[in-house]
Amino acid sequence: MTDLPDTMEAQVIEGFGDPDVFETAELERPTAEPNHVVVRVEATSVNPVDHKIRSGELPDVAPDFPAVLHGDVAGTVVSVGEGVEEFAVGDEVYGCPGGVAGTGGALAEYVLADAASLAHKPDSLSMREAAALPLVTITAWDGLVTRADVQPGDSVLVYGGTGGVGHVAVQLADHRGGVVHATGSTAEKRDLARDLGANHAIDYRTKSVEEYVDEYTDGEGFDVVYDTVGTGGDNLETAFEAAGLKGHVLSTVAHGEVDVDPVHVKALSFDVVFMLVPLLHDDRAGRAYHGDLLERVATLVDAGELEPLLDDEEFTFDAEGVAAAHRRLASGEHVGKVTISRE
Amino acid sequence: MTDLPDTMEAQVIEGFGDPDVFETAELERPTAEPNHVVVRVEATSVNPVDHKIRSGELPDVAPDFPAVLHGDVAGTVVSVGEGVEEFAVGDEVYGCPGGVAGTGGALAEYVLADAASLAHKPDSLSMREAAALPLVTITAWDGLVTRADVQPGDSVLVYGGTGGVGHVAVQLADHRGGVVHATGSTAEKRDLARDLGANHAIDYRTKSVEEYVDEYTDGEGFDVVYDTVGTGGDNLETAFEAAGLKGHVLSTVAHGEVDVDPVHVKALSFDVVFMLVPLLHDDRAGRAYHGDLLERVATLVDAGELEPLLDDEEFTFDAEGVAAAHRRLASGEHVGKVTISRE
Repeated sequence: MTDLPDTMEAQVIEGFGDPDVFETAELERPTAEPNHVVVRVEATSVNPVDHKIRSGELPDVAPDFPAVLHGDVAGTVVSVGEGVEEFAVGDEVYGCPGGVAGTGGALAEYVLADAASLAHKPDSLSMREAAALPLVTITAWDGLVTRADVQPGDSVLVYGGTGGVGHVAVQLADHRGGVVHATGSTAEKRDLARDLGANHAIDYRTKSVEEYVDEYTDGEGFDVVYDTVGTGGDNLETAFEAAGLKGHVLSTVAHGEVDVDPVHVKALSFDVVFMLVPLLHDDRAGRAYHGDLLERVATLVDAGELEPLLDDEEFTFDAEGVAAAHRRLASGEHVGKVTISRE
Repeated sequence: MTDLPDTMEAQVIEGFGDPDVFETAELERPTAEPNHVVVRVEATSVNPVDHKIRSGELPDVAPDFPAVLHGDVAGTVVSVGEGVEEFAVGDEVYGCPGGVAGTGGALAEYVLADAASLAHKPDSLSMREAAALPLVTITAWDGLVTRADVQPGDSVLVYGGTGGVGHVAVQLADHRGGVVHATGSTAEKRDLARDLGANHAIDYRTKSVEEYVDEYTDGEGFDVVYDTVGTGGDNLETAFEAAGLKGHVLSTVAHGEVDVDPVHVKALSFDVVFMLVPLLHDDRAGRAYHGDLLERVATLVDAGELEPLLDDEEFTFDAEGVAAAHRRLASGEHVGKVTISRE
């Protein structure tokens, strides 16, 4: 690959702001460091954390300006650093290697990625589809499989069953043999959640926590509750309320002061799954956990056991396309993942 | 056993109050219900929860008046209910079958106990020694083994390494291969913690969390932190501070509003271990988990791998003895478990 250009186009931000803050810039192309590969980016997807970084809510997590955002990537390896054994030039890969302080981001033609954090792309998926999976799948898996260790027959409640983390959580909980309950705000979303494997879909706007705990668990509460919606406050309290004795509450967000009385009275386990931790802290073992997990996910996907749910609207790699994708996520009107691709 | 009396002596409370509230009463002796046994109580021990029930801090947990308190018991089976296979009349047993709403308590000559919650007493221990173990050992085990799953090489920090739960937690963490750190307020307590298996004993009054995290973990934080002291507020915040990335924080107490930012930023697991839950909620599977665990504990104890730590002062079964035992616990001057025995 001697014909790689010295520079590349990227959609960067020079300061925090609304979605229009993205601008096209010419940056130096990254070169492969030891244990890293350079990936030509074919597709990425928007996660809530990307929106929060762009808007300035998470200054400690943001890369330096001009900042290249976005963790999720699918693309092709174009250059391999010293010590990399798992990947060769030309390999199609996917992962969530960065987009945060100290790492490269995917809103560019090329991204430098720790090889440990990547996996071979599922053959059965397009680049756009593959880029929808990494962050949300790692988050769902770390919560339901590694932390809560869902067992056959466990009652599992997923808040936001068609959201990014939620649509994977429903599928994984189903594969683990859980009896899966998913909330959804519209009939369309509830139908989708059932298609993904939810045994029961709940309209949380018309049913109280007490009502659905009575209806689906005989008042005992759920074994596992995963709040994938990520507002962090009220949702967490309803999650604690919905959990049964010695239940496990998982969340993607928690902040501020929270009433932990139910954690005591019910002897709960409570986990926040924040998958960016190994990226922010240069933790190779944590990154390798991500890469290994995504290899398993690729196997599941190619076997037809797990599928990404993509929003109907599709976006392209230019400042306007990226801005429109971020606006789409912020609108809350999307269903599944909002994706950006070169094609 | 046709010679069992119809009544028994008990140290009951007729209302909440200070330790002097105990009075001697003649109560009807319990008879064996299905799946239950009647145990002649030889010894019991005082746990902080008994103090809280007596003082009125936990009205929902308290038995009805006249209330027979205390969960921990060691004694001899005198009567066996229908369906009980594991125990026969004359068996020496130990466990924590009650002392809370809906169950019998151990501050009496006889206690009715769900057979599932009991185990055969370790042969190598006296009744007094055996009665020191159940509640605290179940609490330490559920936290470190079942929930945090301590692995060899994990760095473990135990707040209160010579307390009730703490002295067992130090020993169990050591047996799991953890590198064990224990806090202690006096040189005597720190020496004791080292004798029990702590690799390092920390004087938390002269060293800040940041200092001991730096000294013992190179600033990375502990893999597992168990707050066994149970004040619930400040201790929990220092526990969150002492934990490393994706670490596991365990506590015996949590209440009120707690800042959960560190749970998010470090992607922590947080568990409250409240072993009374299966007793309060008539959960036979949970009780059987306790009984099975105590059978394993008896094996460990008889092999010399685990030992109870008893406070120097010993108390007897009468209203004055029980009051004095409760005062001893409240004084904070005890080291290890405060026990009450007929001998």
